[in-house]
Amino acid sequence: MEKEKITFNIEKNKNFSEWYTEIIKKAELADIRYNVKGFIVFQPWSVLAMEKMFHFMESTLQKKGHMPYYFPTVIPEKNFKKESHHVKGFTPEVFWLEAVKGEDKLALRPTSETAFYQMFALWINSYKDLPFKTYQRANVFRYETKATRPFLRSREFHWIEAHCAHATEKDAMNQVHEDMETTKEVLHDIYGLPFIFFQRPEWDKFPGAKYTYAADVLNPDGRVVQQPSTHLLEQEFAKAFDVKFKDKDEKEKYVYITCYGPAISRIFASIIAVHGDDKGLKFPWKIAPIQVIIVPFSLDKDVLKKVDELKFLLIKNNISVQTDISDKRPGEKFYYWEMKGVPLRIEVGKKEIQSKELTIYRRDIDKKEKIKEKDILKYIEKTSNEIDKNLIKQADKLFDNNIINVGSKVEIKKVIESGKIARCDFCSISKTGEHCAEIIEKEIGAQVRGKNLKKESPKGKCIICNKKAEEVVYIARAY
Amino acid sequence: MEKEKITFNIEKNKNFSEWYTEIIKKAELADIRYNVKGFIVFQPWSVLAMEKMFHFMESTLQKKGHMPYYFPTVIPEKNFKKESHHVKGFTPEVFWLEAVKGEDKLALRPTSETAFYQMFALWINSYKDLPFKTYQRANVFRYETKATRPFLRSREFHWIEAHCAHATEKDAMNQVHEDMETTKEVLHDIYGLPFIFFQRPEWDKFPGAKYTYAADVLNPDGRVVQQPSTHLLEQEFAKAFDVKFKDKDEKEKYVYITCYGPAISRIFASIIAVHGDDKGLKFPWKIAPIQVIIVPFSLDKDVLKKVDELKFLLIKNNISVQTDISDKRPGEKFYYWEMKGVPLRIEVGKKEIQSKELTIYRRDIDKKEKIKEKDILKYIEKTSNEIDKNLIKQADKLFDNNIINVGSKVEIKKVIESGKIARCDFCSISKTGEHCAEIIEKEIGAQVRGKNLKKESPKGKCIICNKKAEEVVYIARAY
Repeated sequence: MEKEKITFNIEKNKNFSEWYTEIIKKAELADIRYNVKGFIVFQPWSVLAMEKMFHFMESTLQKKGHMPYYFPTVIPEKNFKKESHHVKGFTPEVFWLEAVKGEDKLALRPTSETAFYQMFALWINSYKDLPFKTYQRANVFRYETKATRPFLRSREFHWIEAHCAHATEKDAMNQVHEDMETTKEVLHDIYGLPFIFFQRPEWDKFPGAKYTYAADVLNPDGRVVQQPSTHLLEQEFAKAFDVKFKDKDEKEKYVYITCYGPAISRIFASIIAVHGDDKGLKFPWKIAPIQVIIVPFSLDKDVLKKVDELKFLLIKNNISVQTDISDKRPGEKFYYWEMKGVPLRIEVGKKEIQSKELTIYRRDIDKKEKIKEKDILKYIEKTSNEIDKNLIKQADKLFDNNIINVGSKVEIKKVIESGKIARCDFCSISKTGEHCAEIIEKEIGAQVRGKNLKKESPKGKCIICNKKAEEVVYIARAY
Repeated sequence: MEKEKITFNIEKNKNFSEWYTEIIKKAELADIRYNVKGFIVFQPWSVLAMEKMFHFMESTLQKKGHMPYYFPTVIPEKNFKKESHHVKGFTPEVFWLEAVKGEDKLALRPTSETAFYQMFALWINSYKDLPFKTYQRANVFRYETKATRPFLRSREFHWIEAHCAHATEKDAMNQVHEDMETTKEVLHDIYGLPFIFFQRPEWDKFPGAKYTYAADVLNPDGRVVQQPSTHLLEQEFAKAFDVKFKDKDEKEKYVYITCYGPAISRIFASIIAVHGDDKGLKFPWKIAPIQVIIVPFSLDKDVLKKVDELKFLLIKNNISVQTDISDKRPGEKFYYWEMKGVPLRIEVGKKEIQSKELTIYRRDIDKKEKIKEKDILKYIEKTSNEIDKNLIKQADKLFDNNIINVGSKVEIKKVIESGKIARCDFCSISKTGEHCAEIIEKEIGAQVRGKNLKKESPKGKCIICNKKAEEVVYIARAY
């Protein structure tokens, strides 16, 4: 009986939905009991990780020349109205403030294009000001009517939005590629999340964008989650907000705008989903809330002294470490910190002190090993790299095995129902293909996610309408 | 004519208000042209510094056992209504969301007591859970009706709020002292801001608090600015939100709550005001947006190579560095970066390369010196400490010289009008003293800020009502 209480054990791949709900509660990642529908409290175990995630994303953006801003949370209604696609796309999702007499009607930002670009108009004058690369870390608000899910979809979430202005369309397109590269450097190489960057079909673009490119991550239940997207907004917004510059040829021109939005709290959902296993969470080393947990076998004075000694050694070497000196039994502590996903556990008892050896547990491979105490720093340096590489490799493999080429509607259905992604020839992702996509949506409940940015050439005909295929597309269920 | 445009030169102590407005514009700290009244855009030069300020405050709180949360920005009206003083104090300042059918009326948080404590009731069960120490970094909203001023007072600002629950009143009071110590460690020792921690008079407390303690920083115009405050909320909120724990004696008891609120964007106002001089900003080393600016005397290939070499050396050593290789004249660049407050400037030309010496300008003492190029890292390590110590010393001195003991109403008036703080005997900071404070407010336009937490004993009678003085109080004009 008691063991059931202290261990977490849900088959993730079989019962993913239950697993996800339970691990959020057990690991205290977020509390859904806050008394406003669709709003949750993010708890320390997720916040500590998300703060590290913000750090890596922000420092990467800064290295590439983006400068940080804090924009107001409120945006006047009249700003939204300036760009017709944008207002149409976002108005149903906006929280409005109660009108104040004599002041404009205000929205809580669902995204900040219409706040940034009116300031771009004031700040950008000459080609010398371009590219103008910005970002902000911010909380944004969407009046979701669909069911909310912690981290995946809630009415307030935490993200970074990067907005840039460029002199030419080519520069803007280069920025889109830089954003994709940033996504690889941070989401894949640091957070350990594999994804495919798709060019979204015409009917699934960001409201106001010429092209939308978005990274889809795959969940264990076969559904994809849209993670960072980057948008070529062209000159639509520049014209709406009058963002012009004097070019080298002395002519006034509109800028080309791009925007990029990694939603950290949503990416955290993928970190839970992709890396976790039946025992609970698994964190990549670099973004683990705590990297090392030290568990003593007893609360003896000598043992506690050694625990403290090790703790301070690790702190001095910039490792996030915690000790568990509660009065729970060691076994119970082990289960708890495994469930919480701490990458390394150091076990210390009298035997370890005598033999000058430590027992180390690695969460990524679920194995223990013994090392000499004096080698601990060297061991951690080496192993932390191994852990991250290992988690990435496992995740990559899962992704690659889940894309299946299909040649008929029946096959799409089979692949989708087995929790995988279908790849096939398709007529077009421009407006003309929308009808075929609707058939897939209606009959199979899956979406055409777009075409891979790595060029793939179709060989035959559209799997639905039988017309000449212009594209190879990916079809999946999505959140 | 041109020189006037490129140099910043306003006598800070004589024209503080003009100086403050102009430096915010010139140094691009914030843009007040955002089209919603009372909301501003924080620009990179302030955001880079505030991010460092957040970092030092948050890591200090974490070291002392506070855990980070992200709470929702919205709070239901019914939560406010649970604590009568709180609702009365904050309701006039609240932005409300437009009602959604069937859902509760929501406020944008002006502060988050009523959000945190309803969750405390769910999270705290036993004495083993105490102290329960939390914080969040958040943006908060106040519908200010007074004139707003960038950083000092705006309708949205950026702060940290720390909320703690304790088993006993004594533990709670210890937390108040810890908060004051944190304020010293961060505001004084890192940001370089001197302050006095006052116990606020009864009539100037946080709505719902038993005692309010707040740090006042002095501006060059003789006005004080309230910076972090910490509040002993006692059991009022615990009772309102039913936050109870089972004590060691098996009895259910209400917790004692404290909260602490360093408003980073407001503290930034004091950093501008206290450290700056007639030439512009001066940043303490640890929180400077950029610590070192490298300016070449020419754009020669050899010179630019040396500039890059130095830049990468500094980056490798975790120093925030930027190079100015624009086509402006060196003199113009010098003025610009001095105005921006960069602590150190390295000047590099052909002469410097040949002699293997660098010219270094120190913003804190406005002086140049020559050093051997090979000593640059050693020099920066030593000098960065000197800069911070020097800025703190200058600030402390200014503060100490501006507190004047007074013995009559006429003297208060004289001291206040000369831009200083008056110290005198006063009847009481409990409710009975409010009338005397009102006389001072009405006749002199200054406020009784409270008593110094360092015990000071009155010798005579209240300077206003002539009754026996219970306290020594400080009187100042405030923002």
